[in-house]
Amino acid sequence: MILTLKPKSTKKDIDLVCKKIKELGFKPHISQGKEVTIIGVIGPHAILKKDIFESMDAVAFITPISKPYKLVSREFKKNDTVVKVGNLQIGSRNIIVAAGPCSVETEELLVTTAKVIKNSGAKMIRGGAFKPRTSPYAFQGLGEKGLKYLYGIKKNLGLPVITEVMNVSQVGLVSRYADVIQIGARNMQNFDLLKKVGKIRKPVLLKRGLSATIEEFLMSAEYILSEGNYDVILCERGIRTFETATRFTLDLNAVPAIKKLSHLPVFVDPSHGVGVRDYVPAMCKAAVACGADGLMVEVHPHPEKAFSDGPQSLLPQQFDKMMSELKSVAKAVGRKI
Amino acid sequence: MILTLKPKSTKKDIDLVCKKIKELGFKPHISQGKEVTIIGVIGPHAILKKDIFESMDAVAFITPISKPYKLVSREFKKNDTVVKVGNLQIGSRNIIVAAGPCSVETEELLVTTAKVIKNSGAKMIRGGAFKPRTSPYAFQGLGEKGLKYLYGIKKNLGLPVITEVMNVSQVGLVSRYADVIQIGARNMQNFDLLKKVGKIRKPVLLKRGLSATIEEFLMSAEYILSEGNYDVILCERGIRTFETATRFTLDLNAVPAIKKLSHLPVFVDPSHGVGVRDYVPAMCKAAVACGADGLMVEVHPHPEKAFSDGPQSLLPQQFDKMMSELKSVAKAVGRKI
Amino acid sequence: MILTLKPKSTKKDIDLVCKKIKELGFKPHISQGKEVTIIGVIGPHAILKKDIFESMDAVAFITPISKPYKLVSREFKKNDTVVKVGNLQIGSRNIIVAAGPCSVETEELLVTTAKVIKNSGAKMIRGGAFKPRTSPYAFQGLGEKGLKYLYGIKKNLGLPVITEVMNVSQVGLVSRYADVIQIGARNMQNFDLLKKVGKIRKPVLLKRGLSATIEEFLMSAEYILSEGNYDVILCERGIRTFETATRFTLDLNAVPAIKKLSHLPVFVDPSHGVGVRDYVPAMCKAAVACGADGLMVEVHPHPEKAFSDGPQSLLPQQFDKMMSELKSVAKAVGRKI
Amino acid sequence: MILTLKPKSTKKDIDLVCKKIKELGFKPHISQGKEVTIIGVIGPHAILKKDIFESMDAVAFITPISKPYKLVSREFKKNDTVVKVGNLQIGSRNIIVAAGPCSVETEELLVTTAKVIKNSGAKMIRGGAFKPRTSPYAFQGLGEKGLKYLYGIKKNLGLPVITEVMNVSQVGLVSRYADVIQIGARNMQNFDLLKKVGKIRKPVLLKRGLSATIEEFLMSAEYILSEGNYDVILCERGIRTFETATRFTLDLNAVPAIKKLSHLPVFVDPSHGVGVRDYVPAMCKAAVACGADGLMVEVHPHPEKAFSDGPQSLLPQQFDKMMSELKSVAKAVGRKI
Repeated sequence: MILTLKPKSTKKDIDLVCKKIKELGFKPHISQGKEVTIIGVIGPHAILKKDIFESMDAVAFITPISKPYKLVSREFKKNDTVVKVGNLQIGSRNIIVAAGPCSVETEELLVTTAKVIKNSGAKMIRGGAFKPRTSPYAFQGLGEKGLKYLYGIKKNLGLPVITEVMNVSQVGLVSRYADVIQIGARNMQNFDLLKKVGKIRKPVLLKRGLSATIEEFLMSAEYILSEGNYDVILCERGIRTFETATRFTLDLNAVPAIKKLSHLPVFVDPSHGVGVRDYVPAMCKAAVACGADGLMVEVHPHPEKAFSDGPQSLLPQQFDKMMSELKSVAKAVGRKI
Repeated sequence: MILTLKPKSTKKDIDLVCKKIKELGFKPHISQGKEVTIIGVIGPHAILKKDIFESMDAVAFITPISKPYKLVSREFKKNDTVVKVGNLQIGSRNIIVAAGPCSVETEELLVTTAKVIKNSGAKMIRGGAFKPRTSPYAFQGLGEKGLKYLYGIKKNLGLPVITEVMNVSQVGLVSRYADVIQIGARNMQNFDLLKKVGKIRKPVLLKRGLSATIEEFLMSAEYILSEGNYDVILCERGIRTFETATRFTLDLNAVPAIKKLSHLPVFVDPSHGVGVRDYVPAMCKAAVACGADGLMVEVHPHPEKAFSDGPQSLLPQQFDKMMSELKSVAKAVGRKI
Repeated sequence: MILTLKPKSTKKDIDLVCKKIKELGFKPHISQGKEVTIIGVIGPHAILKKDIFESMDAVAFITPISKPYKLVSREFKKNDTVVKVGNLQIGSRNIIVAAGPCSVETEELLVTTAKVIKNSGAKMIRGGAFKPRTSPYAFQGLGEKGLKYLYGIKKNLGLPVITEVMNVSQVGLVSRYADVIQIGARNMQNFDLLKKVGKIRKPVLLKRGLSATIEEFLMSAEYILSEGNYDVILCERGIRTFETATRFTLDLNAVPAIKKLSHLPVFVDPSHGVGVRDYVPAMCKAAVACGADGLMVEVHPHPEKAFSDGPQSLLPQQFDKMMSELKSVAKAVGRKI
Repeated sequence: MILTLKPKSTKKDIDLVCKKIKELGFKPHISQGKEVTIIGVIGPHAILKKDIFESMDAVAFITPISKPYKLVSREFKKNDTVVKVGNLQIGSRNIIVAAGPCSVETEELLVTTAKVIKNSGAKMIRGGAFKPRTSPYAFQGLGEKGLKYLYGIKKNLGLPVITEVMNVSQVGLVSRYADVIQIGARNMQNFDLLKKVGKIRKPVLLKRGLSATIEEFLMSAEYILSEGNYDVILCERGIRTFETATRFTLDLNAVPAIKKLSHLPVFVDPSHGVGVRDYVPAMCKAAVACGADGLMVEVHPHPEKAFSDGPQSLLPQQFDKMMSELKSVAKAVGRKI
């Protein structure tokens, strides 16, 4: 971290800042120019003390010279992380498509959907048993019964399960049934939940918060890695902007940006990101073209009967058509579906 | 909810929509014009089934004719809710100022700060014992020890305590020490936590999420009321926008907007909202002028020593000056501090 | 447009609303339910009078049943518009890449760049002679001299020219040299300029404003078409959001959304949209994958010498590599570069 | 401007950067630490060459140590600028309220409104003769006839006129009738228009763009001052955010922020900023409380008959009530209306 002092700082100001730097266990490195004085703060995690220096009268600007995250960074680990889920290798040349209904509704519907998506080339089943809903009066999910249905799909059709966990106390239960634990966008900064899934030994798919910067997103992943769980998949799912023609604004720019900053695999969820069925296939193709390692796609055989998110679910035939197009796009960028 | 069908809808389309309406337990009310057909969906909570109709091919537009929340709405309860905290009446003519450090650091510092703010006219002490921090390497709060220090302030100086709870399992503990339970912005849609504090009998201060619309904010409050706890205070604390000159964009427009839509009292937290010490007094005055029932203000005797949020904490003398100005503004709008 | 009246509206309220509808030249269509009264406002451009009804006390909600734009809409013209520029057909199966420096700097540099991009497969040259710059002290462009250099490229290398016009008085001059007139993002709602380019007979590339909704974007295009110029190309170039890891947030969701709403061809400008060189190729591939009809890409042989936007300009070898990848992606989605 | 080089920069890298600094006419100031090398770029307007250094491979971070604007800055001129309009002193202790209809519609209506607002204490008349409208089919203003009606108000009632100019060619005409020339939000970065009004000798009210940062807002003002016109009033009028409960998000934080950064007077336009009549008085009071030097308020005797923006116009009796409340608030913060 580099501190630029205000133009007319005195010797006393400089001494005060240096004293504080030493107090906090760092080493100051002073560079006195004719117009400005610059002080480097040398030592690990110095940037975390940014607030303290920002509070000092003599300090005009602070330049962070290192990232606030460490374990998730490309500097820490140069090669792409590959997360193993059964036989699947997430973050490898193969692009993994996870599909299924927004929420698990009935066993029959789930089985129908699972067969359809498997047949079209999806490699994982997704579906919510615990549903975070804006309204207390909306369907809140089947709970453990839903988890059991999902587990049945895995056993009978061989599709690994990805499903959401909403709070610390559910982590044990969900872990017993799921292959990948999902942390939803609204919980991206539920730090206790992040710490908890950092302690288990299951892959975690972490969704970006609706208004989280990429840096904050990576910081939340850092929480999980810092507890010992390195199997983290990041998932872009749309951010909040002023645009109302789409439900959210799927931010595909995050894909190359995260790929540069971090070694972790990146998924994209266009169903939630755009929220309009007709735009989902186009955005899936775009996601693959710009480097995504996998996709989350909502598919429902009868969207008008869905308990949630019907308007953004693909019909089976739409999904099937898209999958064959995705294969070509993947091949065009040197990947495989 | 009113459904506007697509221009060329057939008799069959209309029948299909009406069948679905009845299936869901509502009554259809058809109005067939020369150019468009409009169908009203009559029945309680019809709006919650919006997704289902949005998924139907024949439906072009949906007009919600009722709000998705109920208990928090002005229609449900016409008069302002007054939340009682000891002798304080939040939501009455008196504007309540809660002040204190961002996080509880040492007992001595807390006592010093508490004396200072009480002397200037603050009526409650605020301070975090459990701190949601973006970085896993940053100070995470003193935990129960911090709660005890806060409780000491209440016992010795008579200032009721407002402090944050971060997860379901902390609710019992924090309730024993605090007078008002705070739900932070990042937990505004932690629905399990909302349900939990809905079951206790302590006032809850709910902060608006960084990218939550006012409607979503009220829906989160509805979660708490729907569990039986009607003592909810809403708190505007800044939203995410493109502007970088301030840390967030304090959205004071939310004050008159919420006042119109809901009967619940509204607080404003300019310290987090703007994040720049020099702008806090101006925004506190603005908040009072536009109808806020209370303020949350960070005060720290030595901001450059604060463990968190130093740059936005007021110095004691700044706070004192501001409080005397606030008294005049409050009087100008028929209120009292 | 459908008006939903407030629950307790009286006969007198209804009469008042109907009287106003007739006054404005429309026909009212009343549907009186038990709980609510709905009134359709029938007639062309009724939606433009929305404000008037919103101002009436008895009106609770307004549902627009038609779009506010007409000539640009898919309903008005079902088939894709193909804009002809010399031999190029923009909006056809061929995807057109326009490349070049941000601003025209020297003739030599422009010629070098033009040769490079032509060799890699670009079909048009782009470059600014008049530059809208945030700072009055920054390089404002070469003016007519720059236009002449661009025209030279066309004459000698056969690449049609696309360049920006900043105000009404420049339209004549720029038209003499350019093949496509560009309206910049900051001028998207410069309505006099839109009307002016609507009167000329040259194709116009209209960039989306930094905070323009897709509907507003189409309304601005409608200004041009309504003056008689139907050769309009829309260009997504990134919107303003809270994210700071990229310069803007390139909103690729706009591509399928506009394609559904309008018949006009859509370009994407990832250079300005992300503003970081390393992310440009990925976003170009994504743009092609999701249906863009063309790309605008900044290329500069010596970005560190560029007068503007160096950090987002591709190096010639990066551009060349990207173009060969783009060919594969285009093929994968049934297009051609 | 301070350049922080990448950790492993070589002697050759450093030399290359220093060479470029000298080439551009600046002086390098090197400070070589054990871990990082920092180079100061010394000289006027260095920050304008930021892009060039950002394009260099060896440069990791750039810290701007001076603002990109000069004439508008508090550093350049310490005392508040007072803009004189007839007898009015804008930026003094007196807070000036400009009121009137959104657009000038008929002479009679304008006279009625003018009398009403004058009677309640407004000191200026506002109203649009040239209207920037999103739709080409909407009312575009009365043009010169509207200007004449406004001028009549000035002559007969003594209220100075503030009205909008939409393009360079209108500046002469509007100047003949208006006392203050308004540049609308959509033209904030119409740089040719800014230069043009910088050359006249009339006060200019510059509205903030819908997605303009405060820095960009000040840069646009700098354009006007740099041409010689120092009589600029800045006007906050709401920014684009995700919130839909209000038309825009009035950003009052901009008031103290601009007051700190600049010496220019600041107006606030809550009518456009919130766009909902019922919230306008609260936001006017808040604007005065946080330091605004003036207000722009839409008033219309028959909002349901207004050609534009009826839903946000105050009724005469609402305006009158508000003005008397504003007087108290102004007094509470040491100002006067």
